Amino acid sequence: MGTGLIGGSVGLAFRARAPSVAVVGYDADPAVVERAYERGAVTEVAASPEAAASGDLVFVATPVDQMRGVLAGLEGALGPETVVTDVASSKVEVVARGEALCGGRFVGGHPMAGSERHGIEAAHAGLFEDAWWIMTPTRLTSNASVAAVGSAARLMGARPVALEPRAHDALVARLSHVPQLAASALVELAASAGDRDALLQLAGPGFRDVTRIAASNPDLWVGILRSNRAAVLDALGGLGHGLDELRSAIARGRWDALRESLDRAREARSSVFSKPRFGGRPVTLTMLVADRPGVLAEVTTAAGELGANIEDLRIVHSTEGGRGRLELIVAGEVPAAALMKVLEGKGYVVDQDPVE
Amino acid sequence: MGTGLIGGSVGLAFRARAPSVAVVGYDADPAVVERAYERGAVTEVAASPEAAASGDLVFVATPVDQMRGVLAGLEGALGPETVVTDVASSKVEVVARGEALCGGRFVGGHPMAGSERHGIEAAHAGLFEDAWWIMTPTRLTSNASVAAVGSAARLMGARPVALEPRAHDALVARLSHVPQLAASALVELAASAGDRDALLQLAGPGFRDVTRIAASNPDLWVGILRSNRAAVLDALGGLGHGLDELRSAIARGRWDALRESLDRAREARSSVFSKPRFGGRPVTLTMLVADRPGVLAEVTTAAGELGANIEDLRIVHSTEGGRGRLELIVAGEVPAAALMKVLEGKGYVVDQDPVE
Repeated sequence: MGTGLIGGSVGLAFRARAPSVAVVGYDADPAVVERAYERGAVTEVAASPEAAASGDLVFVATPVDQMRGVLAGLEGALGPETVVTDVASSKVEVVARGEALCGGRFVGGHPMAGSERHGIEAAHAGLFEDAWWIMTPTRLTSNASVAAVGSAARLMGARPVALEPRAHDALVARLSHVPQLAASALVELAASAGDRDALLQLAGPGFRDVTRIAASNPDLWVGILRSNRAAVLDALGGLGHGLDELRSAIARGRWDALRESLDRAREARSSVFSKPRFGGRPVTLTMLVADRPGVLAEVTTAAGELGANIEDLRIVHSTEGGRGRLELIVAGEVPAAALMKVLEGKGYVVDQDPVE
Repeated sequence: MGTGLIGGSVGLAFRARAPSVAVVGYDADPAVVERAYERGAVTEVAASPEAAASGDLVFVATPVDQMRGVLAGLEGALGPETVVTDVASSKVEVVARGEALCGGRFVGGHPMAGSERHGIEAAHAGLFEDAWWIMTPTRLTSNASVAAVGSAARLMGARPVALEPRAHDALVARLSHVPQLAASALVELAASAGDRDALLQLAGPGFRDVTRIAASNPDLWVGILRSNRAAVLDALGGLGHGLDELRSAIARGRWDALRESLDRAREARSSVFSKPRFGGRPVTLTMLVADRPGVLAEVTTAAGELGANIEDLRIVHSTEGGRGRLELIVAGEVPAAALMKVLEGKGYVVDQDPVE
């Protein structure tokens, strides 16, 4: 549903890596889905959302402010086993809506990929390669649904990660939504330097980088910011506070405090993109779990409370009905051991192995 | 003077494009200048600033907070014709100091190039290729000095531009110094999301771009921010105001206002890096000028008041003593015509030609 940058790239990735899978596309704009068909991103064009709703897995990849309508349109048309997921940039509201429609067969999703470009022309099969694909299971979500979305993400080359919806929204407010607003504010500040717009061209590569995302589509962004309003306001407050502190250090000539602050940021920035993997040395925890909703939420909530990061998870359904094998890859030996202990306290039998 | 990223790149660019020119290097750290010699950035190592002070053109390329000492060290050692320029990121203070030492033979300079990397190992001959090289002549500055620095910048592949020191400082506060602070504040905001630093690794390419410059050297940046304190505080106030407006639009649900604001920023951002040249269609203005200090400041001040951008300027010394030929390349036919009129009002005889 929605064959723009993300939906089109999902289609292209499936076509490239699982050519036997039928990909049925729908878009509110018929020209867009037609173009997706021409580009080979879909194998079949659906004339209505309902006509695309009975597959194994439905990706809702419309702009976030159109999701309510799309989800409503799916009502009654979903197949009995259809799993529904989405790719929206905020999750609390979307997951609530999705669960109202699909119950445990809705899995909130958010691939951490994309660019300031958008639309089907920008789509490509490798968009999700090595990107995190965040899933946000709740107490309702069925294991099989999470497993299906996780497998699809891996098939597209992405790395599935599980987070609570609220933790997700707070995180993306800080990592994406507020940086977006800051980039726009920086461009406006620069452009406000008198009537000499052309002077902007003196901007160097630093300004170019910082403000690149300000070229993004405003309509998409209004939808995203609107859907994550509370977390965005909170994070904007945090940014304002941080800038005030820097301003105060400069105004009062507290150069050591300024240096420390810049140095902390440098350290954090360097650590973000230098580590080869998510967190520390990864450890696999394996356990048998009941094949019922809420199990994954119990595990991810326990992980969240401990600050342990679940880097990947797989569910292998056992042939013995009612139970499956859950594999969690946890970043770091210490958090893995702590999580193992908590899970054992909850009655799970857990094995641990370093990831080879 | 100073053979790090910028000084080393100046040396490498001269060695690559004007191999007959001797490049004498000095650095407060003997190991750095030794390495510059090994890399072929200098042809000779000077043991003291004085020993490198008698050439035709001295580039002072130390961190901005060490310039006072370096300039003081040059006193008395400069050759009678030596022109001194610098590469500091702020100009009002530096130009005042430089002129106190060298009078009209000091030309404030600022190449708009560099990166979050620094030091001699990051230096390369192409660093200034197609970059603007801002010069900030004042009423004191001699034409010959500006011509010398402009020629050197062109030789290194850069495009010389003239701005008043104060206008320069306000501009770089907006285009560089405040974006730097914002990038650091954004990293700190993200890193403050609980104790789960590893979650930062979920950051996508947008966050990566926005915060790239936060990996820069804090010591250098404290020096830069300190030297441009007033303009930085002013611009920080402007950014705070812009963010408050965005925050207020989100808090009040004024989505149309938010969209307009993001759209304005998108337009400005797109225009910054899409135009092939500085401002509009370039026009050359040519005039005979007296070969005395202050002439260029008169011209650049007139251009600044009109909002006309001088994209390039060359001075050709006439053999008839006391007069030279000044060529200005002005961005846009309308500003060029306006500037021509003002200059004619001041008694100059001006010719104009479109740039081929």
